[in-house]
Amino acid sequence: MAVVVMKEYESLTKETVISLAIELSLFSSEAPLVCEEIGDGNLNYVFRVTDGSGEKGIIIKQALPYAKVIGESWPLTLKRAKIEASALQKHGEYAVGLVPKVYATDESLAITIMEDLSHLEIVREGLIKGKSYPKLSTDIGEYLALTLFNTSDFALHPFEKKSLVVEFSNPELCKITEDLIFTDPFFDHETNDFEPALQAEVEAIWNNNLLKLEVAKLKRSFLTEAEALLHGDLHTGSIFASEAETKVIDPEFAFYGPIGFDIGLFLGNLIVQSFTRQDDQRDAIHTHIQNTWNTFCAKFSECWKKGESDLYKSIEGYEAFVLEKIFHDSVGFAGCELIRRTIGLAHVKDLDSIENHEQRILTKKQTLKAGERLIVSRHEINSIDAVIELLGEIQ
Amino acid sequence: MAVVVMKEYESLTKETVISLAIELSLFSSEAPLVCEEIGDGNLNYVFRVTDGSGEKGIIIKQALPYAKVIGESWPLTLKRAKIEASALQKHGEYAVGLVPKVYATDESLAITIMEDLSHLEIVREGLIKGKSYPKLSTDIGEYLALTLFNTSDFALHPFEKKSLVVEFSNPELCKITEDLIFTDPFFDHETNDFEPALQAEVEAIWNNNLLKLEVAKLKRSFLTEAEALLHGDLHTGSIFASEAETKVIDPEFAFYGPIGFDIGLFLGNLIVQSFTRQDDQRDAIHTHIQNTWNTFCAKFSECWKKGESDLYKSIEGYEAFVLEKIFHDSVGFAGCELIRRTIGLAHVKDLDSIENHEQRILTKKQTLKAGERLIVSRHEINSIDAVIELLGEIQ
Repeated sequence: MAVVVMKEYESLTKETVISLAIELSLFSSEAPLVCEEIGDGNLNYVFRVTDGSGEKGIIIKQALPYAKVIGESWPLTLKRAKIEASALQKHGEYAVGLVPKVYATDESLAITIMEDLSHLEIVREGLIKGKSYPKLSTDIGEYLALTLFNTSDFALHPFEKKSLVVEFSNPELCKITEDLIFTDPFFDHETNDFEPALQAEVEAIWNNNLLKLEVAKLKRSFLTEAEALLHGDLHTGSIFASEAETKVIDPEFAFYGPIGFDIGLFLGNLIVQSFTRQDDQRDAIHTHIQNTWNTFCAKFSECWKKGESDLYKSIEGYEAFVLEKIFHDSVGFAGCELIRRTIGLAHVKDLDSIENHEQRILTKKQTLKAGERLIVSRHEINSIDAVIELLGEIQ
Repeated sequence: MAVVVMKEYESLTKETVISLAIELSLFSSEAPLVCEEIGDGNLNYVFRVTDGSGEKGIIIKQALPYAKVIGESWPLTLKRAKIEASALQKHGEYAVGLVPKVYATDESLAITIMEDLSHLEIVREGLIKGKSYPKLSTDIGEYLALTLFNTSDFALHPFEKKSLVVEFSNPELCKITEDLIFTDPFFDHETNDFEPALQAEVEAIWNNNLLKLEVAKLKRSFLTEAEALLHGDLHTGSIFASEAETKVIDPEFAFYGPIGFDIGLFLGNLIVQSFTRQDDQRDAIHTHIQNTWNTFCAKFSECWKKGESDLYKSIEGYEAFVLEKIFHDSVGFAGCELIRRTIGLAHVKDLDSIENHEQRILTKKQTLKAGERLIVSRHEINSIDAVIELLGEIQ
């Protein structure tokens, strides 16, 4: 892998991107290169460079030193580019083919040069259009098991694990999650954003001591439990897919945290789809929810049996304890994701694009109800089928 | 605080120590300095320098690049000197007067220059002689609450906490604990060291799947739960005291771990005393056990009420949940300490110095039994008084 010679940070343009691609010999020297900016420009520039044949492309992603999230710009560490590139590489070692290849990085320019995935579609967009991506849950279940097991104490020597914990210390991006997922939606905070028709439901959340106590416990887990190198933001907008392929992108929130957080975020985003779809379209989503967890378990068990690094892995009951802990955490984190995507700062198009007002409010109320029940009852929910049953009770 | 000019590492001698004390102006220039080496030379040199008047002294502690622990020498990171000095300073910010003052440090020489505590006695030695140090449990209870609460997410901004997690990453010394406390004693491992008369009890431990499952969970907690900046080795040999003073020394195992680990190690060492003492001498120890926990709780609650850093602190039931979790962890970690101090590599003089063979073996069997019960039943033990009752059932 090439490492670009260190430079001072400067915002790239289409022209400097092409110079960089030539400098790095990423294309044959005669190719007539074409560059376009395809990002949304809120947090990063995303440039796509092709050689004119339309066949070969690369992506150059550059982190911007600010985020346009709450109306105005807000300074944000450039270190996230390094975290993202390193996480893609580390996860790519284990989940082979399920993350984009990294060709080069440069820490001072805050760029990652990687595989072009423009032939794929963002899963959230496809799901909203009614697609169901047959390989999605098998691929994500395997991705979760392989990346999370293999970066945990169950697989790594403690020196290597602790060195990764330090490398992936990510305070600024973790703080965004701590605030926007675990705190603000549960208090009357200015970052919240909800429709007036939800006022009563939102106030009920703010006044629900039991719910907030359980969220406090989940936040504590997020703050303290360094179980594995998480993606950290595994919603359906962080996944590219087609009928044949699945690729997980954008791990700039990567850090050592509780395994259930990645699983819970993904399941939470599938659960949103279960609420937004018509009855007869839900089965594909429910199958994905079940298959994600079941594939994760099967692959995690396979990894558990293989390694020799921990004598305790052979103790009867230990693997079951670990998987049960991960399951209950996942259910709780999924619940937090449902609530924050409905009333917090960062919404999802799945819900907001429902045109009929009554239908949209009903769906949002159901999503909030599901979020609450998943959080509060997570220790009584003992199987992924029980999660599907709970959704059925609300729908 | 002075920082010595960086040098290459070299082992200090009495002569170089005196030069260093002069260079740092730690004494008046005319004072006739006297130096003696007072350490055991296994892991560190400990030099005491006095000005001849017998009144003023300083301690210069230098880490050695190896440990003579298992018969032969074993290389050990010098970084531990830096960790120790930084932990003394960080804990000293909160537990004022309960740790030695640090006057200077030098990372390249791996030295810490600190307050001379020669007028105090190591608590383990005093307890073995039958002393009971009236202030011990109040001081240690406060030390635990102040150091652990104030370095946790309940007190610190998340950026500061995460920066301390990185600063106190301590893989080599944690590995010693992971092996010697959590793994080796529970498997037929060459580092174990036990009397032949305990063979049956030791094999019963090795064959006790339920016990090992619970130790696996405690080890997992030690490996993953970055709750607070621990001392990391808070046994009664790490505490100096008199009737009037208590000072916690030697935090070279400091790292971010589960709060209950420090509490459990201290309680475990008091519990050993409960078993080695005659019936009529136990009350003072039981009072210390109860008072340590009760003082910790009272002081922890006081800190909890003060700070504003976490909105969730006001949620009904959250403090009780946190204290309950800490209590059950503490009970389990105390159990691990009892077992490893009886059959693992590092014994305690409290047990090994019992001269009568029959009495010694009986006491060690009771210690093992208490260790097992504390580990396996920790979630059913709901008060510190219940711990004392359990000891009574075994005695």
